[in-house]
Amino acid sequence: MKTKSVIGQSIPRLESKDKVTGKLSYLDDLKIGGMLHAKVLRSPLPHARIVNIDDSRARKLAGVAVVLTQDNLRNNASWETYYGPVMQDQAIVAIDRVRYVGDMVAAVAAERPEIAEEATELIEVEYEELPAVHDPEEALADGAPILHETRRMPPEGLPDLSVDLEGGTNLCNHVHVEKGDVERGFAESDQIFEEVFTTPSTQHIPMETPSAIAHRAGNGRLTVWSTVQNPFMIRRQMAAIFHLPLSKIRVVSLNLGGGYGAKLNVKLEPLVAVLAYLTQRTVGITLSREETFQTMTKHGAKIYIKTGTKQDGTILARRCRIYLNTGAYAEIGPRVAQKSAQGAAGPYEIPNVQIDAYLAYSNCIPAGAFRGFGLSQSAWAYESQMDTIARSLGIDPLELRQRNLLDEGGEFVTGETLHSFGMKESLDKVAAAAQWGSKTAVSGSLARGKGLACIIYGTLTPSISSATIRLNEDGSATVYVGTVDMGQGSDTAMAQIASQELAVPIEQISILHSDTDSSLFDFITASSRSTFHMGRAVQLAAQDIKKQLACFAAPLLEVTPEEVVFEDQVARAQRDEGGRSLRYSELLMEHFEIKGGNLVGRGVVKTSKVNEKGELQSAAFRVPAVAVAEVEVNKETGRVRLLRYITAADVGKVLNPQSCQQQIRGSVIMGIGQALLEEIVYQNGLPINPNLLDYNLPRFLDMPEDIETILVEHPSPNGPHGAKGVGEPAIIPAPSAIANAIEDAVGVRIRDLPITAEKVLAALLKMKTERSAAS
Amino acid sequence: MKTKSVIGQSIPRLESKDKVTGKLSYLDDLKIGGMLHAKVLRSPLPHARIVNIDDSRARKLAGVAVVLTQDNLRNNASWETYYGPVMQDQAIVAIDRVRYVGDMVAAVAAERPEIAEEATELIEVEYEELPAVHDPEEALADGAPILHETRRMPPEGLPDLSVDLEGGTNLCNHVHVEKGDVERGFAESDQIFEEVFTTPSTQHIPMETPSAIAHRAGNGRLTVWSTVQNPFMIRRQMAAIFHLPLSKIRVVSLNLGGGYGAKLNVKLEPLVAVLAYLTQRTVGITLSREETFQTMTKHGAKIYIKTGTKQDGTILARRCRIYLNTGAYAEIGPRVAQKSAQGAAGPYEIPNVQIDAYLAYSNCIPAGAFRGFGLSQSAWAYESQMDTIARSLGIDPLELRQRNLLDEGGEFVTGETLHSFGMKESLDKVAAAAQWGSKTAVSGSLARGKGLACIIYGTLTPSISSATIRLNEDGSATVYVGTVDMGQGSDTAMAQIASQELAVPIEQISILHSDTDSSLFDFITASSRSTFHMGRAVQLAAQDIKKQLACFAAPLLEVTPEEVVFEDQVARAQRDEGGRSLRYSELLMEHFEIKGGNLVGRGVVKTSKVNEKGELQSAAFRVPAVAVAEVEVNKETGRVRLLRYITAADVGKVLNPQSCQQQIRGSVIMGIGQALLEEIVYQNGLPINPNLLDYNLPRFLDMPEDIETILVEHPSPNGPHGAKGVGEPAIIPAPSAIANAIEDAVGVRIRDLPITAEKVLAALLKMKTERSAAS
Repeated sequence: MKTKSVIGQSIPRLESKDKVTGKLSYLDDLKIGGMLHAKVLRSPLPHARIVNIDDSRARKLAGVAVVLTQDNLRNNASWETYYGPVMQDQAIVAIDRVRYVGDMVAAVAAERPEIAEEATELIEVEYEELPAVHDPEEALADGAPILHETRRMPPEGLPDLSVDLEGGTNLCNHVHVEKGDVERGFAESDQIFEEVFTTPSTQHIPMETPSAIAHRAGNGRLTVWSTVQNPFMIRRQMAAIFHLPLSKIRVVSLNLGGGYGAKLNVKLEPLVAVLAYLTQRTVGITLSREETFQTMTKHGAKIYIKTGTKQDGTILARRCRIYLNTGAYAEIGPRVAQKSAQGAAGPYEIPNVQIDAYLAYSNCIPAGAFRGFGLSQSAWAYESQMDTIARSLGIDPLELRQRNLLDEGGEFVTGETLHSFGMKESLDKVAAAAQWGSKTAVSGSLARGKGLACIIYGTLTPSISSATIRLNEDGSATVYVGTVDMGQGSDTAMAQIASQELAVPIEQISILHSDTDSSLFDFITASSRSTFHMGRAVQLAAQDIKKQLACFAAPLLEVTPEEVVFEDQVARAQRDEGGRSLRYSELLMEHFEIKGGNLVGRGVVKTSKVNEKGELQSAAFRVPAVAVAEVEVNKETGRVRLLRYITAADVGKVLNPQSCQQQIRGSVIMGIGQALLEEIVYQNGLPINPNLLDYNLPRFLDMPEDIETILVEHPSPNGPHGAKGVGEPAIIPAPSAIANAIEDAVGVRIRDLPITAEKVLAALLKMKTERSAAS
Repeated sequence: MKTKSVIGQSIPRLESKDKVTGKLSYLDDLKIGGMLHAKVLRSPLPHARIVNIDDSRARKLAGVAVVLTQDNLRNNASWETYYGPVMQDQAIVAIDRVRYVGDMVAAVAAERPEIAEEATELIEVEYEELPAVHDPEEALADGAPILHETRRMPPEGLPDLSVDLEGGTNLCNHVHVEKGDVERGFAESDQIFEEVFTTPSTQHIPMETPSAIAHRAGNGRLTVWSTVQNPFMIRRQMAAIFHLPLSKIRVVSLNLGGGYGAKLNVKLEPLVAVLAYLTQRTVGITLSREETFQTMTKHGAKIYIKTGTKQDGTILARRCRIYLNTGAYAEIGPRVAQKSAQGAAGPYEIPNVQIDAYLAYSNCIPAGAFRGFGLSQSAWAYESQMDTIARSLGIDPLELRQRNLLDEGGEFVTGETLHSFGMKESLDKVAAAAQWGSKTAVSGSLARGKGLACIIYGTLTPSISSATIRLNEDGSATVYVGTVDMGQGSDTAMAQIASQELAVPIEQISILHSDTDSSLFDFITASSRSTFHMGRAVQLAAQDIKKQLACFAAPLLEVTPEEVVFEDQVARAQRDEGGRSLRYSELLMEHFEIKGGNLVGRGVVKTSKVNEKGELQSAAFRVPAVAVAEVEVNKETGRVRLLRYITAADVGKVLNPQSCQQQIRGSVIMGIGQALLEEIVYQNGLPINPNLLDYNLPRFLDMPEDIETILVEHPSPNGPHGAKGVGEPAIIPAPSAIANAIEDAVGVRIRDLPITAEKVLAALLKMKTERSAAS
């Protein structure tokens, strides 16, 4: 009779069947009667002044409803011209100047997509080319071409993350983290290690490319359907652009075909909304794959890292300079820089630290959030250098890490104490599973090696998630969350949490998500925060329902509300196992007198700048991720084959083992892509591989036979059943674990991602040359 | 600085501009990508056995997705075959038997509506005609053809309103109301008055004909858009038919182009849902005007009324037999009969009453709710008879009513005490405005007269309305109500109430309505209940928000929460007129730490079978309506021209004078149509005028120059600001007031609606003949 617990069960993902049978609708499937289709004309040049736009031929094409150019944007009282989540530096379409290849210059809305496409080709733009810059360090040098002559203040209410709002520089943000006295640290060190690492711009490659539809109702209310991870933030950004009260805007995000950070913040929404305003019609757009590449990327970076240690490996000091390339527009770059800087000390107790992250504008595609959010870039440097240090000092890399490791109760570089933090357990478990220390001998031109990496990940704070549950008159439940299910399985997690807490079968629960009209406020689906925040909010909402049910049931069961227990959609008295019980539907009928009425439960989770102990915090939780990669390197060709990959993540509490494993595997696969394959290649400012034929996305053959996942459980007192986050951490250690394994196998250290066969072979040849020169 | 009260202001209706400029979308405007269009084949016979259906040619037509006949319905586990709000007596399409001209026999879903239409014409149905009956009294006589051989129990949880579930009779419900000893009452009377009145079947004629769309998502969740006044009840009915938990069904009703009772309860929804199940596609339907006529009507009725009085006009006893024609299916008829019976004693103190309402099946179009819900039929009889009595006893009709009238504190026929009931004031004000007692002399063939009528209306109970308000982070508010705005102006009323209570400008308020996913439970938009119930729920939800705001503001303003006052989206300390104040947006920012998060306020209004004094109640409020009509009758032609129409309604509190007047005028116009023009004419069971060319709908030229509305305010303690309901009462007295005015003008009494010129002329000729015979 007792409901079987659904927590910890591998409940199949609710939407999977619909996905594999093609029944799930994505935004591009949504066709609204009378909808116009938009296409964008993009800049072919990395940096140029717009001398003239002649759209007369495009406007005359039959089926064209409107052509949008800078002329429509200037001096218009109905909307702001510039937008951006931190800096208002991006125009709805380019005004006066284009700043990267792909910058939006004009847009056409037409009866059919092909007409819109044809019309964009009829627009003639006269450009005057300007000097361009593509490297973040060069962009900050004297004499570099400046992208933004004037700076626009961040939107009201957002923290000012910029050091310089005066313009006249490409420095978009500078974050400085300091602890102890780094100079004294270096002075006291026995050994100093200085290296430079680079990591290129890459793309998120969600299966579903971005789409947006804007519909303006007769009453002025604006509805935007968009492939976004943060509908509530989009709503706020749109309200600011269009001077509308929030109550007059609805933003809906359906199930996404992947996000990974690419679908945060306004991108296409202002464009389709302006087109809808101009045409008084519904307007939609879906980007091509090439346009998706041209919309947002991961920050390429150059990292100077200098670490001082004692002879026994104790780290005394670290200085780090990180140059991040944010491309033509700031997007969320200023916050990426902040996270990157805070992460650069790694999961280690280092008494003296000085980190500077410089975010530079350049004539590249704008960069923004990417799974790992700034931490991947700094971890690539610091976890590679840990092995340089270990090798140099003759200490085992595991041993070196263990000597310096932060664990439960340790102090992070920001001064925060680490709680519920299973670093040591994760490291030990991965090392054991990997048989760390043992080595498989191989013959001939092949060599094998193992590499280790461990990182610390933190989720953002302050933030809010709120959930509502309706218990319907038949005892079924509808759960409302702002969380966007973009493949991570959040709907299933929320259904499990609600089912467990409400004692309602999962089949009778519907999860309605990410519609600003029906969901309550949720900050963002990102930062691996949803299970922790929204999952807890769902649990609280369910508890709120039970409290109400207990009040109705108590007099009928002749007990106090506290003595009422719930199982299988039934309330009964705790002491009375076989006694009277009341179905939820009966209780509601009793309460409402009619067959109708519903109970509403609400749960709000708010994380603050201060934790419950009164300590300042910059993350609502921190989790470790540890990985060991085992590789086989072909010394003749430089080709690297991944043999095994073992990773551990401290998820707090496993709600759904299969779902956790899938998320971790997904992260690892993406991390392997970053390590060995992926890079947007620029030639004279032109990205030459923005398509899936030329861009090196990992394929199944690039993967090891198995990706072993170890789920560690150090429960957080604030997560639902103790759960924390699992979406991102596992991507971060992959490149350094693999680089370390390669060095372990063949003795070469690659410092520039991706680690292609060419780079390995070149390093092997160089090492050979140097050795023969030395001998 | 102080917010101007919006209560009592004639705020223009929020949607009016969109309506008159054609921008407002109705359901038929909603085109869903890939949607199929359905058409229905209907019975050409009033009563017949279906011998055979051959749909082979229809199925072969290119573009036809499916043909639905009785064969798809039988023995299907996915849905119930029969449905109905009280009796489950109607099949999704006819099975074995058709029971009226227009009964649905088959349906086709096809790529285009024209294909579906053509396909229905290719379906060959072989019928065996059965004897039919069309009069409710005849239908109950021995030997009448029986429509339903077996009876189906009402759906679980609904009260059993039927006396006989055995079948073998056309009696669908019998309601008996008794008070005192009617035989003794008649025995003690000085005079006995016996008359028979009839009122025909009419149609509601909403401007928008019914539409429905069903969409079944891959996950099995069913969404139904439908032109309905009661989405939550539709959801429950659909859940029962399709065996789905309520959480798996969404019902959405957009703004309706009129309802008047025609759009209550499932009609097209099971049909499109079955078609969607069979085709795995989205399926929509919109009825033609003729089909709208064939879907639902007002109950035609025959009323035997016998009243006994003292010589001074004191009424001692009334017996009334009401035969209501519910057509082929019960629909909500059993409840119409109940209301009709309860209303037949009128707003009078009558010590001995015996009323029987008989609801009869017949081979007519099903009848259901119609503005006035059963009361119109009985009021037509009792208010006509009041003038027969007055004239016979030589008492002024106003005087006769005043002698017998119920007012505040009086006891209604059900035994309930009347509260907040402004009958006397309404009657006095109308009489004064009409210059009752004065008469304008006219010459020649024209004669003028005045007629009075007064009625009592009650709204249903028990019922529930619940509202939610979200206060967004910018201080704007979104209000969620289940109430359907079908032209009555509910959105505007709700916005006024929310604006006033929240101190947020009406421009910053959005009203989202009648979507079972986003609105909380609301029983029904009918019974003139929405302002009273939902308006109060909105007010409570706003108060809930203010309570929360007061808690945040109190420490910042250094006062207690009780000392915080709100105006113009600002909180300030009561004692501190010029002191510190905090904008709502600032308070939310302070509370949530980020620019995000919303407050949710909730209000639930539940009316019970018992009022707050512990007395049983059958209405949540009762209101009077009084009218005086002044007519000019052409004695040569019988033509009646309305000169003046004055009506008073006790609305409790006038929230929006213009809106109240518009609703009352709308009711009066409809009442005038019922009085003088409207009737569905049957010939051999065939409705011969189901179109707007042949059906006599009132036109502007049929109206008096002005319809004067007097708004009386006897506030209800339970309504928002004291408001009660205004949608229906004013329709009810119109026919009897006009009939009474005609008798006053020319001395003839018409007892059969509508009062056509032919009937008046015939009565005048008959009177002339009788007079000359007598002289």
